[in-house]
Amino acid sequence: MKQIAILGSTGSIGTQALEVVAEHPDMYEIYCLTANNRVDKLAEQARRFKPAAVVIANDAHYGRLKELLADEPDIKVYAGKEAVDEIVEASPIDIVLTAMVGFAGLSPTIHAIKARKTICLANKETLVVAGELIQRLATEYHTPVLPVDSEHSAIFQCLTGEDGNEIEKILLTASGGPFRNMTMDQLRTVTKDDALRHPTWKMGAKITIDSATMMNKGFEMIEAKWLFGVDASQIEVLIHPQSIVHSAIQFRDGAVKAQLGVPDMRLPIQYAFSFPQRLRLTSERLDLFAGPLEFHKPDMERFRCLSLAFEAVNRGGNMPCIMNAANEIANRGFLEERCGFIQISEIIEQTMELATFDAAPTYDTYVESDREARKIALGIMENI
Amino acid sequence: MKQIAILGSTGSIGTQALEVVAEHPDMYEIYCLTANNRVDKLAEQARRFKPAAVVIANDAHYGRLKELLADEPDIKVYAGKEAVDEIVEASPIDIVLTAMVGFAGLSPTIHAIKARKTICLANKETLVVAGELIQRLATEYHTPVLPVDSEHSAIFQCLTGEDGNEIEKILLTASGGPFRNMTMDQLRTVTKDDALRHPTWKMGAKITIDSATMMNKGFEMIEAKWLFGVDASQIEVLIHPQSIVHSAIQFRDGAVKAQLGVPDMRLPIQYAFSFPQRLRLTSERLDLFAGPLEFHKPDMERFRCLSLAFEAVNRGGNMPCIMNAANEIANRGFLEERCGFIQISEIIEQTMELATFDAAPTYDTYVESDREARKIALGIMENI
Repeated sequence: MKQIAILGSTGSIGTQALEVVAEHPDMYEIYCLTANNRVDKLAEQARRFKPAAVVIANDAHYGRLKELLADEPDIKVYAGKEAVDEIVEASPIDIVLTAMVGFAGLSPTIHAIKARKTICLANKETLVVAGELIQRLATEYHTPVLPVDSEHSAIFQCLTGEDGNEIEKILLTASGGPFRNMTMDQLRTVTKDDALRHPTWKMGAKITIDSATMMNKGFEMIEAKWLFGVDASQIEVLIHPQSIVHSAIQFRDGAVKAQLGVPDMRLPIQYAFSFPQRLRLTSERLDLFAGPLEFHKPDMERFRCLSLAFEAVNRGGNMPCIMNAANEIANRGFLEERCGFIQISEIIEQTMELATFDAAPTYDTYVESDREARKIALGIMENI
Repeated sequence: MKQIAILGSTGSIGTQALEVVAEHPDMYEIYCLTANNRVDKLAEQARRFKPAAVVIANDAHYGRLKELLADEPDIKVYAGKEAVDEIVEASPIDIVLTAMVGFAGLSPTIHAIKARKTICLANKETLVVAGELIQRLATEYHTPVLPVDSEHSAIFQCLTGEDGNEIEKILLTASGGPFRNMTMDQLRTVTKDDALRHPTWKMGAKITIDSATMMNKGFEMIEAKWLFGVDASQIEVLIHPQSIVHSAIQFRDGAVKAQLGVPDMRLPIQYAFSFPQRLRLTSERLDLFAGPLEFHKPDMERFRCLSLAFEAVNRGGNMPCIMNAANEIANRGFLEERCGFIQISEIIEQTMELATFDAAPTYDTYVESDREARKIALGIMENI
């Protein structure tokens, strides 16, 4: 029986992870659930899965959570970001699923790595911001870091049994988002509601906007670089509107291995939990007769965020951290209708020019860079 | 340094295997080459690769081969089918590539399995005719049998690292051959020249016709059953005109893994030689931007041979052997313009009805069934 901590249990990945756990009660138990703000949903999950502990990161909700779980004396209730860092170190935990959104994922992930928990990484900012640090720590502490993103899981699935076989190229697929076929002029007038109608994957709002700008694919490219030890130049992004081929790798003999399936996040979540074993999953099966599979080159002009990600990772140091912070501000700005769609990349680009560059950042540098870049990005947004 | 025996070295697979060996002279050496009739080409290959021995299976060519290799005293020259059976047992041999065509592949493969040589199986009739026997012997002698067909190699590549993970379904792709879109009426009048213009793979004449009738896919379905231990009902044939997805497997979590690439037989040959390692292969790389990938259901009425293969394998016993023998006759009959395209399946179907069924055949039964079925098929063809 494996004990699991789900960080960010009320989000899209978190709730689907709980579905996986519910399907395999003989294999997994929830040790701990954490959320940022959604206290009612967190309490409801806790009543169902009976974890040893719950943490609400925003401590303003502590009283409410205590109240909601007053008749569950076996569930310990904590609050605050530090409590999240501490709870992941609890000795019964085997697996930590990092499914919270944004820079906030970095600190508890570092704590979990140092506590030698198997990391199922769904928080992409962790590797985007601090990929070098995370991989160094994972190596030092012999902690497995397994991907949960469908793309990285696909690559990871294709790499099993290929020990020692060099990757020539990673083919990273992207749905292209809802604005795939729009002109620059059309992109200038799209709204958050247009963006939130994502064609294939059911996801949270932040990642849906990141998907529309293709910053999400830029993040995934950076994650892939760190997870699989390749250079960014070895990663090719392919627009694949059907979202059937979840990604692929090419080896030095020219063979390409791909993982395909209907879009269903439960599969990569479950695979990260059960690796190298595959458990039964009663889901819709792939129907290749449904229609042709298409692949197109991404337009780096219209989707400027994708090229900014390549620029940031090639520059290295704290530049991806700066880019991520600016993106968090611009993304929220767009959701709050404080900036337009095209401005998202403009805010990021200008922040990358203005923020202090550091070629060899430490954890503290990341925290400082993140703070500085957010401030700069906010300033730019206010002056639009 | 691995020592390789290539049975059928003058055919399409054999010559491409020699290209692979030539690319990796630090890893592979040719111990032995065999051919059936093409004595000049065999001698030319021998002069280049300096094997310890060559065998010409048709002993009528022995004198000519001796003459051609008179100035190569280090190359021993043998003739006859028995010599092929004997040479594969030579102790220096590590790998036997069975690339000869037809029923003739069975006997030397059995000898090589008993001598515990790694079998790189390119002769598909071996498993079609006697899959049960071959798998039993391979298990008994702990001899690895590795596929060389591009489809089975694709499946095999996707299975590495998946030990213990049950196969839910095999997705066996087929180009559909040159007659994919023809009506029954059109199929009645096609000629061997129409068939020999195969759209994607460069292959020998016999397999090209088998590809046009889709009997080749029926063979591959039977091979897949034996190689991967699944039931025929778990194998789905998909027409995939682009021949980019070489085949795929679906696991019980719904994940589908596929191997893709440009059609190039050197890859599966090399992979079988070097497994689990992948060696460099300088070949054209896959371009997914070239066009969409399509998948269609095969028409079992127009391509009756495919359903006959399912019927034969479901019946079991010596029925696939009978089917194969009848196909060898009908295939050659079509190439020699002694029967039409549609008659190929008719000859096979009638032979399957008339030949003596044996539910539990031995090697001798296979030899006898093969002989009987050929005679029956010839008789049917003469009366068309």
